[in-house]
Amino acid sequence: MGGDRAPAAEVKGALAARSLLDPDDRIVLVGDEKKIRAVLEFRNGWQDFIEIHHAAQRVGMDESPVDAIRAKPDSSLMALVELHAAGEIDACISAGNTGAFVAAATVRLRRLRGVHRPGIAVVVPTLHGPVIVCDVGANVSCRPQHLYQYSVMASVYAERITGISNPRIGLLSVGQEDTKGTILVRDAHALLKADDMLYFVGNVESRDLFRGACDVMICDGFVGNVVLKLIEGMGEGLLREILQNVRLSVGPAAAHAAQKAVLETKHKYDSNEYGGAPLLGVGGTCIICHGASDARGIKNGVRQTKAFVHHHVNDRIIELLARNQRTPNG
Amino acid sequence: MGGDRAPAAEVKGALAARSLLDPDDRIVLVGDEKKIRAVLEFRNGWQDFIEIHHAAQRVGMDESPVDAIRAKPDSSLMALVELHAAGEIDACISAGNTGAFVAAATVRLRRLRGVHRPGIAVVVPTLHGPVIVCDVGANVSCRPQHLYQYSVMASVYAERITGISNPRIGLLSVGQEDTKGTILVRDAHALLKADDMLYFVGNVESRDLFRGACDVMICDGFVGNVVLKLIEGMGEGLLREILQNVRLSVGPAAAHAAQKAVLETKHKYDSNEYGGAPLLGVGGTCIICHGASDARGIKNGVRQTKAFVHHHVNDRIIELLARNQRTPNG
Repeated sequence: MGGDRAPAAEVKGALAARSLLDPDDRIVLVGDEKKIRAVLEFRNGWQDFIEIHHAAQRVGMDESPVDAIRAKPDSSLMALVELHAAGEIDACISAGNTGAFVAAATVRLRRLRGVHRPGIAVVVPTLHGPVIVCDVGANVSCRPQHLYQYSVMASVYAERITGISNPRIGLLSVGQEDTKGTILVRDAHALLKADDMLYFVGNVESRDLFRGACDVMICDGFVGNVVLKLIEGMGEGLLREILQNVRLSVGPAAAHAAQKAVLETKHKYDSNEYGGAPLLGVGGTCIICHGASDARGIKNGVRQTKAFVHHHVNDRIIELLARNQRTPNG
Repeated sequence: MGGDRAPAAEVKGALAARSLLDPDDRIVLVGDEKKIRAVLEFRNGWQDFIEIHHAAQRVGMDESPVDAIRAKPDSSLMALVELHAAGEIDACISAGNTGAFVAAATVRLRRLRGVHRPGIAVVVPTLHGPVIVCDVGANVSCRPQHLYQYSVMASVYAERITGISNPRIGLLSVGQEDTKGTILVRDAHALLKADDMLYFVGNVESRDLFRGACDVMICDGFVGNVVLKLIEGMGEGLLREILQNVRLSVGPAAAHAAQKAVLETKHKYDSNEYGGAPLLGVGGTCIICHGASDARGIKNGVRQTKAFVHHHVNDRIIELLARNQRTPNG
């Protein structure tokens, strides 16, 4: 376990997730056994559905992924991925170092058949419904074929997990015209346009994310990461500013009422509310939780792994990519 | 004139800007003379400080910049830039097609000595003070040297116009570590680190924009455009959602008070409030106003051109770039 609040958040999240489990389901907590037991102490019945797998090392949040994997073979992160690779667990969840998790999963679980690069998808809640943004940081140097495959994979996720049938795919650019954007975006645009099976609505701009223009928004991992963290930072900054204005400008009763409304919006945009982000394209089920996840975030991560496995997301991705043999190699 | 509300917004903005002008200042309105006169009719005294320069054609918002320049030599946009190139005006403001304005200005006004690529800078207001983001769309395919020069140019703007002495420069990436990001970002990082005259604070993440981490945030034009439009879209979406929650959850009196506080924040983030974006690096003073600018936005654009000229922003940029002959070519 390597989240900011590890192991308390992870352990409490696992306890809270009990209600989501089927009778045969087990949660394996991978990390420092002593610390995990300290949180579990005095809790009743955890032995019925929780197992502990000790790991002596821990990957820090700021460690270089490649170094961390090489230098810490006994980290909780590597042990987690190894358990999944060995078939001892059906899915894994981490709130730790995202880069290290992506690297370990890609190396040990390998890519799904036909996939060039795994991508991280995130569900952004909006007034017009959820939008899946992919990639948000697995792959900062994309080729057109990667963006094409992200569209296929994120569409499967939108359909199977978010329940959006025939999701509209938008390609993030700096203008809606086909000719706008970098060479990467223009070439990816051509690939997407050529595939009749995808519901490609063309280029979209970042402001369209909140205007219901598409259900899936595709971009390279650098741009997606900027988008994700900007939403986080701006949400925080804007809401704090509004609350400050409220306190300054109106009386206590009205301020209380207004704060309630603002916090309701804040709650909706809290990453703990919609759980973690799937790493799409690897040969397994990997859910990335926010480093600052609390027990609620971890519990929602468990919910997502269940849904991901239950709805055979990976099988469907392999099926769709195999169907389309025409697309050039990335 | 080619803004969404042309020519009414531009003409009314010019009228409102009278209070900003020195006795010898004149505003030249470039566009369809008949339509401009229709707005000016019944206004007193406009002849004292406003001139009209007729232009028969108009570049549409969605026209390809290159095509528009070629096919419409008599557009108001080209006429505006030609007047500036001929030295008949000291600065130009446009709320029309940004790409066409940038292309026309770059071709006709040329680049400042030593500048490889012009960049658009935007002032983002935050709780911690204004942050200058550059480039936000002039140049979607950057080289490291372009990002380095944006840092120099945006710092001059921050110092001279925004009044931030010794501005802290952050390079937008996907993590704070030096090694994070694309090859472009890593190479630009090295260039910035090597220049002792700049106050380079290293990589920053997009969420840091609202956390007071830097005064100047540098990125390529694709990423910057995504950032700018996301702020716009999210501000709009989030504030609408909060107002909706307020209406649903509290009584009318409290709702009114809360709305007031929310609208105060909205007002601050309104692009009309802080005026237009300078195109840095061209041999002239070019202020780009938002297409949806109202008279207030145009008036603030006029204020900016005055400050830009008064504080010799271009001279200082040339001076700083000449100082640093060591930097490699882009």
